Amino acid sequence: MHAMLKKASGKNIRADLENLGRFNSTPGEGLTRILFTEQELKARTYIKDRMRELGLSVHEDAIGNIFGRLPGTDPELSPVWTGSHIDTVPHAGQFDGMAGVVGGMEALRLIGESGRPHARDLEVVVFTSEEPTRFGKGCLGSRALAGDLTRDEAAALTDAGGNTLRDVLAELGYDEDGFSEIKRERGSVYACVELHIEQGAVLENLGIKTGVVTAISAPTDLRVTVKGTQQHAGATPMYLRKDALTAAARIMLKAEELARRAENVSTVATVGAVRAYPGATNVIPGRVEFSVDLRSSDLQEKNGILETLRCYMEFTALECDVDISEETVCHEHPARADSHIIQAIRTVCDEKNEPYHLMVSGAYHDSMFVARFAPFGMIFVPSRGGISHHRDEWTDYGDIALGADILAETLLRLSSETPETKETSIPSNENG
Amino acid sequence: MHAMLKKASGKNIRADLENLGRFNSTPGEGLTRILFTEQELKARTYIKDRMRELGLSVHEDAIGNIFGRLPGTDPELSPVWTGSHIDTVPHAGQFDGMAGVVGGMEALRLIGESGRPHARDLEVVVFTSEEPTRFGKGCLGSRALAGDLTRDEAAALTDAGGNTLRDVLAELGYDEDGFSEIKRERGSVYACVELHIEQGAVLENLGIKTGVVTAISAPTDLRVTVKGTQQHAGATPMYLRKDALTAAARIMLKAEELARRAENVSTVATVGAVRAYPGATNVIPGRVEFSVDLRSSDLQEKNGILETLRCYMEFTALECDVDISEETVCHEHPARADSHIIQAIRTVCDEKNEPYHLMVSGAYHDSMFVARFAPFGMIFVPSRGGISHHRDEWTDYGDIALGADILAETLLRLSSETPETKETSIPSNENG
Repeated sequence: MHAMLKKASGKNIRADLENLGRFNSTPGEGLTRILFTEQELKARTYIKDRMRELGLSVHEDAIGNIFGRLPGTDPELSPVWTGSHIDTVPHAGQFDGMAGVVGGMEALRLIGESGRPHARDLEVVVFTSEEPTRFGKGCLGSRALAGDLTRDEAAALTDAGGNTLRDVLAELGYDEDGFSEIKRERGSVYACVELHIEQGAVLENLGIKTGVVTAISAPTDLRVTVKGTQQHAGATPMYLRKDALTAAARIMLKAEELARRAENVSTVATVGAVRAYPGATNVIPGRVEFSVDLRSSDLQEKNGILETLRCYMEFTALECDVDISEETVCHEHPARADSHIIQAIRTVCDEKNEPYHLMVSGAYHDSMFVARFAPFGMIFVPSRGGISHHRDEWTDYGDIALGADILAETLLRLSSETPETKETSIPSNENG
Repeated sequence: MHAMLKKASGKNIRADLENLGRFNSTPGEGLTRILFTEQELKARTYIKDRMRELGLSVHEDAIGNIFGRLPGTDPELSPVWTGSHIDTVPHAGQFDGMAGVVGGMEALRLIGESGRPHARDLEVVVFTSEEPTRFGKGCLGSRALAGDLTRDEAAALTDAGGNTLRDVLAELGYDEDGFSEIKRERGSVYACVELHIEQGAVLENLGIKTGVVTAISAPTDLRVTVKGTQQHAGATPMYLRKDALTAAARIMLKAEELARRAENVSTVATVGAVRAYPGATNVIPGRVEFSVDLRSSDLQEKNGILETLRCYMEFTALECDVDISEETVCHEHPARADSHIIQAIRTVCDEKNEPYHLMVSGAYHDSMFVARFAPFGMIFVPSRGGISHHRDEWTDYGDIALGADILAETLLRLSSETPETKETSIPSNENG
């Protein structure tokens, strides 16, 4: 067994996260850093400066994805990536995304300082706008890398102020002609390993520090509208009602029941948003709008639940004498992590005698789009109380450091693989 | 059988309603006339002028209740009242309240012009602020008449601008010292008959033009707060959730079920307002607030349902592992209409060969507070589609005219009753 790398520094990780945390447009009310705002641009500069301090060579593509490269011994071989994002939702914490960028930089520092040879270039990537906050669509950078965001689409995406992504990029000096060069072909990246906070409470509940992601269960999002009859709450007997809210409540509970009865533990259904109109205590709601967020790593099971839920909505429309319409906001396919990368992470954990938990990521990540052109893996670190997208989001710096240790060893392994040395070939990801 | 009064004029009723409808702070977006705003003050002036045109003597008490009197032959006897209100909720129609004021004036015109003698004074009353829109509390005028709104309470009631009812009254020149004279003692008013639109669809569904109210099923309003755990919709498996919204949905459906299974057809339960926090599609709601509006003319049944629902909330808190707290916003007792007045209205309908339906009022009215000091009755006219508190609120002018006919005959009967002539004594209302 080869010698281990030095341990990651929790102090470094804390310093970088806290420094990044200062680029914040809502100080005192959680961390808000929206794509290409003053604060986000300052965070980009901070990251690029830090990358250079660590001896990485920095470049940026035409949509603002930042790459910090630690060169390997064979520049002909495809690189190994790690990375995540530095933008946030409004009033967020300082870990979602940032843990993977900061942990990735720390991993490359450990590898670089070890002097251990590795054939492949190692790159830490900051993906542009994983959060959908500014342009209503998430994973802009990784989408573009996957060829799923063209120049025309960038010209069509607008923010709340009416600015298009294309204009914002042009104003900041990004080269529009470079847009066609963003896309990565399958095979051009050997592997990508993303470190991320879990954003759930599974690891905390198990008392395990490391999650090894087997799949990302991409969401299917529905927007459901129930139309009944707005009537006086006192003057309308029960038998004359067409109550949009109680009809909606039936559907909410059925979605929950279907997910609870699912075979796959990754299968979940959530109603997060609901609005009743007119919303007065003494008026029967005539219209209710609510969201359904359905996820599973098992596409077949997700599709089955979707079909059952749609059938139940038809039944409810008849039973409650209301109109129910539904719009599919998105219907993503789950992405399976690469088995060779999963095995590499597991081997590292075993060597470190560190227990791990194989798990599905219910949250989506840039890795979901990376999966379309490269094999990927993910390492999760625990989220206190499972809280995320919230100012109370927290992960212990020591836990991120442990994740960075496992990440560093994994990256070193993968970047040392050459067509000659590699015993098992990395299967191409079929589920991109 | 004595000769009938002349028929009420649909044209008069239409003219008054349309004229009143012009005093509107949201033209084109329904009728909005909030207490003591410029528009409401103009409507008051219009009503007082019309009363004078009809030969009524007008006076106003210290909270702005307006009285238009048609004198009887025996000034020693207690008067008979009719009336309703002219303020509205925002973006309302032109019938709720106004139909009773305009119909009441028309009824007094018919009686006055008939020259038929009546012992008791007849008064059409405009009760101040039946709607709770400005000061958050409804039936201000009738509450004060019942002695349920003191000068101190008027000094404590504030509107959204921070003005107290007391200051607003003082600014308009109402005599604060007169406040103590508003309250009416039991026995000081012989009877009160309110004409009102149904605000439900029962009459329309039955194809009957006249409702005779047997009781007002006053509301019990709860504000329920469910606290679960705000978590990521993707990253939290079903077994780790404490979803505040699905717990709330269970309670909403149980409230509906309990009301549907009730014996009394007037028993209804409504959840009109619901808010989920933070309200994002991909976040499990950590907190949900909703209203429960429970009504019945049967206080025992309402209390029974309330007890069962509270028990179910305790159970749901345990089953769903959430906290559920509940605040009782109001718990009013139903008011029974006076049997002698009900009989008088029924007799008039029979004489006119006009079918009627005995029914409970699910909406509350000023009569609910009048019941505390005087026997009351109510006559309902149909609401198209049961729609009320909405710009689409509609009642045919002819239907209001028919209601005014029945009202006029009923008022004439009651105002002709003297201690000598009255065969059956009017029982005092025991359910005030």
